[in-house]
Amino acid sequence: MIRVGVVGGSGYTGAELLRILAAHPQVELAVITSRASVGKSVADIYPHLRGIINADFAEPSVNSLRRCNLVFFATPNGVAMTMAGELIAAGVRVIDLAADFRLEELAVWEQNYAMSHAAPQLLQQAVYGLPELNRESIRGAQLVANPGCYPTAVALGFLPLLAEDLVDRSSLIADVKSGVSGAGRQAKEANLFAEVAEDFRAYSVPGHRHKPEIIQTLSQVGGPVDLVFVPHLVPMIRGIHATLYARLQKKDRDLQALYENYYRNEPFVDVMAAGSHPATGSVRGANTCRLAVHVPKSGETVVILAVEDNLIKGAAGQAVQNMNIMYGLDETMGLNQAAVWP
Amino acid sequence: MIRVGVVGGSGYTGAELLRILAAHPQVELAVITSRASVGKSVADIYPHLRGIINADFAEPSVNSLRRCNLVFFATPNGVAMTMAGELIAAGVRVIDLAADFRLEELAVWEQNYAMSHAAPQLLQQAVYGLPELNRESIRGAQLVANPGCYPTAVALGFLPLLAEDLVDRSSLIADVKSGVSGAGRQAKEANLFAEVAEDFRAYSVPGHRHKPEIIQTLSQVGGPVDLVFVPHLVPMIRGIHATLYARLQKKDRDLQALYENYYRNEPFVDVMAAGSHPATGSVRGANTCRLAVHVPKSGETVVILAVEDNLIKGAAGQAVQNMNIMYGLDETMGLNQAAVWP
Amino acid sequence: MIRVGVVGGSGYTGAELLRILAAHPQVELAVITSRASVGKSVADIYPHLRGIINADFAEPSVNSLRRCNLVFFATPNGVAMTMAGELIAAGVRVIDLAADFRLEELAVWEQNYAMSHAAPQLLQQAVYGLPELNRESIRGAQLVANPGCYPTAVALGFLPLLAEDLVDRSSLIADVKSGVSGAGRQAKEANLFAEVAEDFRAYSVPGHRHKPEIIQTLSQVGGPVDLVFVPHLVPMIRGIHATLYARLQKKDRDLQALYENYYRNEPFVDVMAAGSHPATGSVRGANTCRLAVHVPKSGETVVILAVEDNLIKGAAGQAVQNMNIMYGLDETMGLNQAAVWP
Amino acid sequence: MIRVGVVGGSGYTGAELLRILAAHPQVELAVITSRASVGKSVADIYPHLRGIINADFAEPSVNSLRRCNLVFFATPNGVAMTMAGELIAAGVRVIDLAADFRLEELAVWEQNYAMSHAAPQLLQQAVYGLPELNRESIRGAQLVANPGCYPTAVALGFLPLLAEDLVDRSSLIADVKSGVSGAGRQAKEANLFAEVAEDFRAYSVPGHRHKPEIIQTLSQVGGPVDLVFVPHLVPMIRGIHATLYARLQKKDRDLQALYENYYRNEPFVDVMAAGSHPATGSVRGANTCRLAVHVPKSGETVVILAVEDNLIKGAAGQAVQNMNIMYGLDETMGLNQAAVWP
Repeated sequence: MIRVGVVGGSGYTGAELLRILAAHPQVELAVITSRASVGKSVADIYPHLRGIINADFAEPSVNSLRRCNLVFFATPNGVAMTMAGELIAAGVRVIDLAADFRLEELAVWEQNYAMSHAAPQLLQQAVYGLPELNRESIRGAQLVANPGCYPTAVALGFLPLLAEDLVDRSSLIADVKSGVSGAGRQAKEANLFAEVAEDFRAYSVPGHRHKPEIIQTLSQVGGPVDLVFVPHLVPMIRGIHATLYARLQKKDRDLQALYENYYRNEPFVDVMAAGSHPATGSVRGANTCRLAVHVPKSGETVVILAVEDNLIKGAAGQAVQNMNIMYGLDETMGLNQAAVWP
Repeated sequence: MIRVGVVGGSGYTGAELLRILAAHPQVELAVITSRASVGKSVADIYPHLRGIINADFAEPSVNSLRRCNLVFFATPNGVAMTMAGELIAAGVRVIDLAADFRLEELAVWEQNYAMSHAAPQLLQQAVYGLPELNRESIRGAQLVANPGCYPTAVALGFLPLLAEDLVDRSSLIADVKSGVSGAGRQAKEANLFAEVAEDFRAYSVPGHRHKPEIIQTLSQVGGPVDLVFVPHLVPMIRGIHATLYARLQKKDRDLQALYENYYRNEPFVDVMAAGSHPATGSVRGANTCRLAVHVPKSGETVVILAVEDNLIKGAAGQAVQNMNIMYGLDETMGLNQAAVWP
Repeated sequence: MIRVGVVGGSGYTGAELLRILAAHPQVELAVITSRASVGKSVADIYPHLRGIINADFAEPSVNSLRRCNLVFFATPNGVAMTMAGELIAAGVRVIDLAADFRLEELAVWEQNYAMSHAAPQLLQQAVYGLPELNRESIRGAQLVANPGCYPTAVALGFLPLLAEDLVDRSSLIADVKSGVSGAGRQAKEANLFAEVAEDFRAYSVPGHRHKPEIIQTLSQVGGPVDLVFVPHLVPMIRGIHATLYARLQKKDRDLQALYENYYRNEPFVDVMAAGSHPATGSVRGANTCRLAVHVPKSGETVVILAVEDNLIKGAAGQAVQNMNIMYGLDETMGLNQAAVWP
Repeated sequence: MIRVGVVGGSGYTGAELLRILAAHPQVELAVITSRASVGKSVADIYPHLRGIINADFAEPSVNSLRRCNLVFFATPNGVAMTMAGELIAAGVRVIDLAADFRLEELAVWEQNYAMSHAAPQLLQQAVYGLPELNRESIRGAQLVANPGCYPTAVALGFLPLLAEDLVDRSSLIADVKSGVSGAGRQAKEANLFAEVAEDFRAYSVPGHRHKPEIIQTLSQVGGPVDLVFVPHLVPMIRGIHATLYARLQKKDRDLQALYENYYRNEPFVDVMAAGSHPATGSVRGANTCRLAVHVPKSGETVVILAVEDNLIKGAAGQAVQNMNIMYGLDETMGLNQAAVWP
């Protein structure tokens, strides 16, 4: 059994992490913390976990967490970096679901997240936890930076094209759409039901924090890329849909076969049949990313459709997948739950 | 392993049944039928079950189904009654998720469902599958009539009051609200997104088919009841909320304690703390019914709040719970999944 | 032209008031204030009013408002009472859309709203602005207390029964359901899209602030009443549905005819045909309250269904209706817009 | 007064047309037809029009319609073409909200709509009713082909760039998202609430019927274009959001100024300030198209955001705008209603 700590268990990502970990056969939930809810029962904050988790939220502290084998941070950006060093020094492995360790370059990180980094020495040590790209490095990692929700979908969609060098790397377009839970549980006017329902809009077109992370990942596969990244807010709770466009440089390849082959051993990437349109509803609650490949008539442009549950494959599920890899478990352990539909 | 058949697997209830059964450790999904989709892959009809169920829909026939130990009917009303007799005669046990065997009196059934009953001789043999009321009879049953979604919530809400004879049985009111999946997958204008979203309305106030079923159940606990039953349609996919009103005849009882005690051994009924307001979102995807007991100030009227997932505790989950009881398994086997929230 | 001021124009009710007033042929929008948005353009805060209203938000002050003929307060509870006295003294008429002047008894008000009242001397002067009940008093009023959204629907539903003394006044039940905009634009976790969507729940069952207001109104028609009041939150933006139950004491009356007759001259109350189920979607954006009358089979209980748009007939539309009455205009002026459906 | 007929008044587009026309000061609704609802009251089919329209649906026939000055067809594709010829011959002007007369080339039309055209001789006579492009031709038209909802948003977004020849015409991308009412009122499984809510997906990526119409329109401004067109379904009732991408060939132009100037006299196109993100909610119920222009950092690609209400500027509102132009009325008459928000 892995003794697991969860820091910051009171957001949506933390809630999903708790739900998945509570059913994981090799996990003991040793410490669950939430600064805002210290002393309260987890089930009081999350009625859907009544009868599932019987524990109280503890104060987050290195002292209480050092008795864990592994600590997940499901905290806002800027928290994990203040505790990860001490925990690692104490032999605890760390998976951060926030962005603290996702970017390799300090300057880019500090500009992007508008704060000083508290543990810059850890940036190089951290492994970017996208199993489909970095499985071997994750295996031995002390510190895993769990990818963002948009970056996961965009990377899984573009990787085969970049790995085979089939597209113009300078004109990638990612038109992405996300459910509202991606914005977290923070009470903001913009996320109120009355503002989000019956509405659709783009946001952060001049610049979104996930863009440098995506560019960093894509650029590791065959060289630098440039990307136009346009996120939109969808009136639904969960789900990300990435619609990806790239200009084909080599047009004779069977892209359907390429994708099927590239992901044939991946337990959580599902390449659908040619002509398909993956639906976010088909991955709701599951750790699956579904892909479809289209080349509209003129043949100049390839269109990739990718869906995932932003809270699962885009966050908590992928974090548990990383844990399974780090501990030599079956990668799918605790992650076999089918999507809940309708 | 129980060899299980599912007839009518292409509606919402059938989909949920397949999802739950596929993960059940003691079930082998031997036959899955759908008249409309014969020969098609289950995963083509239900992309969310890709990688979960690898099977094709078969033609529903007694011949193919008789090799099962147990057959679930997730069909429209009027189908199970045409096949159940032969299956039972062949030693197959049957759980009908539709209404064919829910009413004891033939005349009431035929009037309520506006058709002739094809197997009236089975009406007395059928056991009404509400485990909290009929657990012992279910254990040995050949034929189980799985309760309707509204009847489950209303019965679980009223039972303790009726068992203790605390309320005026002639003035029960059930103001119930249901998500749209309760109406099934049939393409009807009234269930289109553009008609349901941003709308709320009552329906069938002059008479709803679930009303005789509810009255039959409640009347078995302490004598005949009368009921005003007003269903409403909620712009959400899943969930039933029953708001129940009864006039108290004895006012000195601690109703909170009564409810907690009445359900203390029930794995799927959760009596919340005094003052609570159960949310349908807290049972989305789970086989749980959550209850809260209120007595507003004047003290004349007790208000019970009950929530369930209409497709789980109100349909497929309860059916599997009945299966577990019939086969002497742990009643919660395959049903421990936490609610998916948010 | 009436010179109109709107105080607190940055909530949902204020936005609707601005939209309606901007199209009103006898209104000049002289002053629009919002403490939070002083100096900003109305159209920047409300992009849907771009091209409709070209004005900036001003600081709310008696000085700037006294040049109006009429001032609407679309502010939180407790604001209008600090300014209304001075404005009235200066000859300005006032309509408060909040609760400051809705209750006649000071002690009840202060307990219910948990604050001291800043202008108790105005409580008796204020006219409760339900035109269907108080049209004549509204005509000459200096200060109108615009009714709450729930109270409007519940009162319009019960009034004919109480006026004719047909029901047991001690056992009224109002099971009410509201869209989320009723909770206002305040950023609260409970109103986030991810919490409200796909969820349904009751709230404030032990006691809701609108209950004393409803009881006060109903008790004015034939004597004291008692009421069980259970509000619920519906995952939609707009709309209130009240499902009202009362025990009939006289069963020989044609209730359909009673309702049609009672409201036959009311421009904004629509009694639907017998057997109907009014839908909130049918009044979205309109100043209409639709009613239906049902007497389920046993005949003991009458069920009234009432729908309104909580922001229009339940707030801003009714306020403009009151203004029309106060100024001797056609009561429907500026309020003829049909509901926007679907 | 214009004597107006509306054929096919029982879909969503027809309902919106009736709502707008009923409030239009220069329109007399002379004939309203619906084959499916002959003899029924409009208000029975559309409860939201109770008290607004007191008329019954008539049988659609040239005989009854020839007494109109103008007939709108809000019918499925293939209906208007069977009646338009006779009506025009009788001196009646016609606006078709379906696709019958939108494409100039017969062969393209017949392939795209998979039927024979019943009135090919009218294709050249028909004027494509996009006022911002064809205002002068519309003025004198006998037959107007009202544009589709996607084509309107995409055309208004791209026009200034094409008119000034600033972009690579061979690599236009339109990633468009639509609310569900765009699919009409037909009862289809895919449009059920339980399938659409909490889901997002692309559809018709291999080929959508609006694509030839868009290409035809854009190609009229400066020469042939090629387009990748990817439509998506959004879980909301109304609204279209077009996210448009084009590669800039001339990078020194002030695109914000270009757009503001291009549309400065258009009453229904609103170019928002630089950096804006138009929201579909801001045009709900209004005849407005809102645009924003972005050039993300690398400067190679321009991103245009365009929103409209698919039932108004994308259908019924634009049709009334065309009528106003045809009859020399103020182009905004009857179309000044502000968006209903939230």
